[in-house]
Amino acid sequence: MSKQTQTLTVLGQDDQDDAACCPVITAAPLDAEQAAGLAQVFKALGDPVRLRLLSMIASREGGEVCVCELTPAFEVSQPTISHHLKLLRQAGLIDCERRGTWVYYWALPATLDRLAAVLRAPQAATVSA
Amino acid sequence: MSKQTQTLTVLGQDDQDDAACCPVITAAPLDAEQAAGLAQVFKALGDPVRLRLLSMIASREGGEVCVCELTPAFEVSQPTISHHLKLLRQAGLIDCERRGTWVYYWALPATLDRLAAVLRAPQAATVSA
Repeated sequence: MSKQTQTLTVLGQDDQDDAACCPVITAAPLDAEQAAGLAQVFKALGDPVRLRLLSMIASREGGEVCVCELTPAFEVSQPTISHHLKLLRQAGLIDCERRGTWVYYWALPATLDRLAAVLRAPQAATVSA
Repeated sequence: MSKQTQTLTVLGQDDQDDAACCPVITAAPLDAEQAAGLAQVFKALGDPVRLRLLSMIASREGGEVCVCELTPAFEVSQPTISHHLKLLRQAGLIDCERRGTWVYYWALPATLDRLAAVLRAPQAATVSA
């Protein structure tokens, strides 16, 4: 399942250097490609159920959550939860692995960090423009 | 025009203390109300044209941009740009003022900072749970 994950190159998850890889919206106007990639991630966050799922996964001590623990928290169907989880995964915010009957999810903190860096205000940003 | 701006209490813009006011998704699961408020802001960011508009406004030296400088950068109609700007304003990301013929926009860096804080990873967050 995790092999299907599409990651977003705009967030440069394989790059260790934030300043070199990632746009900062307070430093310079985004180009169309940067905006398209980032908009996909923000769109994934733009839904209350997905935000709650992400916070349940990202705040879990030990780092991973069985899907069987996620679905009972919501009054929507299991397929709907699976769809929301897929969108979070495609945005590079979480990943997962099937073990036996259940799928286990964990957050990708590097993506959260990089997204936070994109939003940081001028006083915190390295403005190179 | 700026009087119509709806701000989001979930981001606690009037509160000086980040830790006291704002949820951190890696610290604890969001409740439904927090998730609804934050989802509205992330949804505002979940569109490439809105992200480009916000970055054009937020990165402007001097702090404000005439709408007359924003519309020529896009191949969409002026009413469409106005609609996108309205959504950014309703999310508390920008504000504006009419002066004579034109409306001038500026970013609200406190909202960007607080949104970045919501996303910060465990090592940077003050985990109180």
